Amino acid sequence: MTLRMDCDAAISALEEYAADALERRVPVIRQTPMADLARTLDLDRLIAEGGLRDEALRRFLAAYLGSSTRLHHPGYMAHQVAVPHPAGAVAALVDAFTNNAMAIYEMGPAAATVEQAVLNWMLRKVGWRPAPMPGSGEPADHHGGGVLTHGGSLANLTALSAARARVAPEAWRDGTPGNLVIVAPAGCHYSIARAAGILGLGQRAVRSAPTDADGRLDPARLPDLIDGLRRSGSEILAVVANACATAAGLYDPIRAVAAVCRDRGVWLHVDGAHGASALLSERQRGRLDGVELADSLVWDAHKMLRTPTLCAAVLVRDHRTLDGAFQEEASYLFHEKEQPGFDFIHRTVECTKAALGLRLFFSLAADGERAAAAFIDRQTALAREAAAILRSRPGFELAVDPESNIVCFRVQGDDALQLDLRRRLTEAGRHYISTTEFRGRRWLRLALMNPATGPADILSLAEAVEACLAA
Amino acid sequence: MTLRMDCDAAISALEEYAADALERRVPVIRQTPMADLARTLDLDRLIAEGGLRDEALRRFLAAYLGSSTRLHHPGYMAHQVAVPHPAGAVAALVDAFTNNAMAIYEMGPAAATVEQAVLNWMLRKVGWRPAPMPGSGEPADHHGGGVLTHGGSLANLTALSAARARVAPEAWRDGTPGNLVIVAPAGCHYSIARAAGILGLGQRAVRSAPTDADGRLDPARLPDLIDGLRRSGSEILAVVANACATAAGLYDPIRAVAAVCRDRGVWLHVDGAHGASALLSERQRGRLDGVELADSLVWDAHKMLRTPTLCAAVLVRDHRTLDGAFQEEASYLFHEKEQPGFDFIHRTVECTKAALGLRLFFSLAADGERAAAAFIDRQTALAREAAAILRSRPGFELAVDPESNIVCFRVQGDDALQLDLRRRLTEAGRHYISTTEFRGRRWLRLALMNPATGPADILSLAEAVEACLAA
Repeated sequence: MTLRMDCDAAISALEEYAADALERRVPVIRQTPMADLARTLDLDRLIAEGGLRDEALRRFLAAYLGSSTRLHHPGYMAHQVAVPHPAGAVAALVDAFTNNAMAIYEMGPAAATVEQAVLNWMLRKVGWRPAPMPGSGEPADHHGGGVLTHGGSLANLTALSAARARVAPEAWRDGTPGNLVIVAPAGCHYSIARAAGILGLGQRAVRSAPTDADGRLDPARLPDLIDGLRRSGSEILAVVANACATAAGLYDPIRAVAAVCRDRGVWLHVDGAHGASALLSERQRGRLDGVELADSLVWDAHKMLRTPTLCAAVLVRDHRTLDGAFQEEASYLFHEKEQPGFDFIHRTVECTKAALGLRLFFSLAADGERAAAAFIDRQTALAREAAAILRSRPGFELAVDPESNIVCFRVQGDDALQLDLRRRLTEAGRHYISTTEFRGRRWLRLALMNPATGPADILSLAEAVEACLAA
Repeated sequence: MTLRMDCDAAISALEEYAADALERRVPVIRQTPMADLARTLDLDRLIAEGGLRDEALRRFLAAYLGSSTRLHHPGYMAHQVAVPHPAGAVAALVDAFTNNAMAIYEMGPAAATVEQAVLNWMLRKVGWRPAPMPGSGEPADHHGGGVLTHGGSLANLTALSAARARVAPEAWRDGTPGNLVIVAPAGCHYSIARAAGILGLGQRAVRSAPTDADGRLDPARLPDLIDGLRRSGSEILAVVANACATAAGLYDPIRAVAAVCRDRGVWLHVDGAHGASALLSERQRGRLDGVELADSLVWDAHKMLRTPTLCAAVLVRDHRTLDGAFQEEASYLFHEKEQPGFDFIHRTVECTKAALGLRLFFSLAADGERAAAAFIDRQTALAREAAAILRSRPGFELAVDPESNIVCFRVQGDDALQLDLRRRLTEAGRHYISTTEFRGRRWLRLALMNPATGPADILSLAEAVEACLAA
């Protein structure tokens, strides 16, 4: 077995890759054309002839890592993707080697147990009752439920499928009725509209929720919209609230929205893909006040929980609703039968299922949940500091006071200038940022995911922007 | 950084785990109740307090691996999940550490290039034209396309979404029309019916294709079914053919089915999740004769290509059809704009996307494609040998002559006896097999995935079954 030798080569290459980035010895991003990269990596020959080991492996890894985007670089502020905890990578190694496809308990008892444990930990953070572990003798009455999926888009699809099963139980057998609509603020993640397309509602079925000027859902005007839609014959599949929204990282007022939804008997889905991790922080969890009143919540571990891509949780207040997502017969009908463990297969699009829980568990258990909370507090504070630094520069404008680790700013000039600045920064390779549309304009956008990024990096970014403008 | 120390601990534990299994020193499967496992693994305390390193990590790994199902054990013959090539685990480590979410090229140029290279390799094996690499200057006219997804179920959903976009282009915006149907043999994988449920057709929209006695699609009777459905107002979303079917591993006659589909203007989707790997083998590829006439093909690398879970390819003859799967505006409209590389984000449910191509590339490039072909030939030959061994035992019955690495047999007695035998074998822990329904009866089923499994293991299984019967 070549596992140890090949891993040794990989670990050496990865340590160098991360150190180069941390020390800023290399660009954070380098955009080589695909055709050139394919040649450099010698992919076709290696597939045909084999031999990816020893010196060939080291050569390949050097080229591969040299053209990978460096999330470890303090100038990485672009996307909501974790700089993973190294422990998460160890978990990925164990998962990939053992390959315990744990959707059926007997295909991976330990992997399934770890997934259930992290889901229960998350359920408790939300304020929902964890699921009793099979064999514990605890009663299986009202409690929450969950499943880990490959990413937030799939998680939103899963949650909305569960919502569809409640409002239109016949949809699974007979097809999606033509009158289902989803109510969501215009700034919701595009996977909500995509889910509407996939689930057969069509993207037109996503109706814009009333919002304030910053795009936050306005609970005061929500009842009129719901009542009006119902009067015109629509059935509300769900109201979607953001926690937080992708563009500027603002949280919708969940408790007030939940009150409306409960009053009207409407499913409330909270898309907390990015922002649900604030539940860990005593200082930040107020942003999600009332989340325990929702019906479903999506929470990505591969964002603020520093878990390698992908690992997202679909959580529901009542486990039976999730069992209904992909089949008409909910698995709670079979609770009578004593099982050694859960079969997750009823709860997910996937059949074969990776041990995603192990990645999240390792990322958490390396330093404990207090370290995860401290990381979230640190990044949120850094965002506020970044906002202050940027706001203080002449000609810089801030979109909003940050509520999370996302900061949007722009410089005087039109949208094309902002995009051009971003392009020039990317080419220079010292900073990698993203852009977004917010309040009808284009903004430069920071997602502060990296524990190595500090105020000095924000300052150097501001100076780089000013240098571009002066050039 | 603790990467090296933690990885060292993991590698030692994994090598021991695999060696114990290969030497049959441990049970292939052990079904511990979840509550006991959760206590043993000490999950809640580790999440709260942290410290998963050094001795604590070694203790955890010993317990975790001790309750994992051992795919490396020669007695593992249960499910269509790879005993992964160790190189695939190294790739998972690199992917998880670098976390290049490569759905957008700039978020992982090397990862995206590797994915495109393995997809092109697969397209060539099918007989479809590979995609020109951006920057190569090659013309981007008619060619195939693909994307890697987390598993065959998601891949089937993606392919059927592309088919829906062709037959009902308005579905994405306005909702799925009520008259769409999918024609598939009854023995197709359950993810086809699940896709119909998710996509808003409803499971009733899956109509049984005519088959022979063994469940193979019967092309002679297919035109009448299609014409009849159309006369009654149905629109055919797709015909699905199996390559091979899950239960007994039989291949549908693709060329003849494709001729009917082409003649009638119907999308042909081939579910080759398990069996498409036969394309690598000169001896076996005749099973998929005519596959190049299909519109879409699903091919799981985490089955016979020995890639860690999950890694499945959705492949299409015309790349534009895949770009239409999740949006009304196909990305080929934007081909005018010169890009350094592909953005895969238009082709997949996922937004953040893992570097799945790297796992497949490592699994292939370690020993080269000829080794992959030899593995497929070996496992197919082993299945035929297993069938001969089992058939020769008094009281044993074979379902069919195996066409792949799947073997179904039963002993004299009713269905309950077969299930009871399987339960007793699982408890004994020396062999781990599955069961299936085929031709209306319950069969014991072997999926021969393990390169360490040989005729002696089949013999020992037969003897174990006989010992159970005699007890």
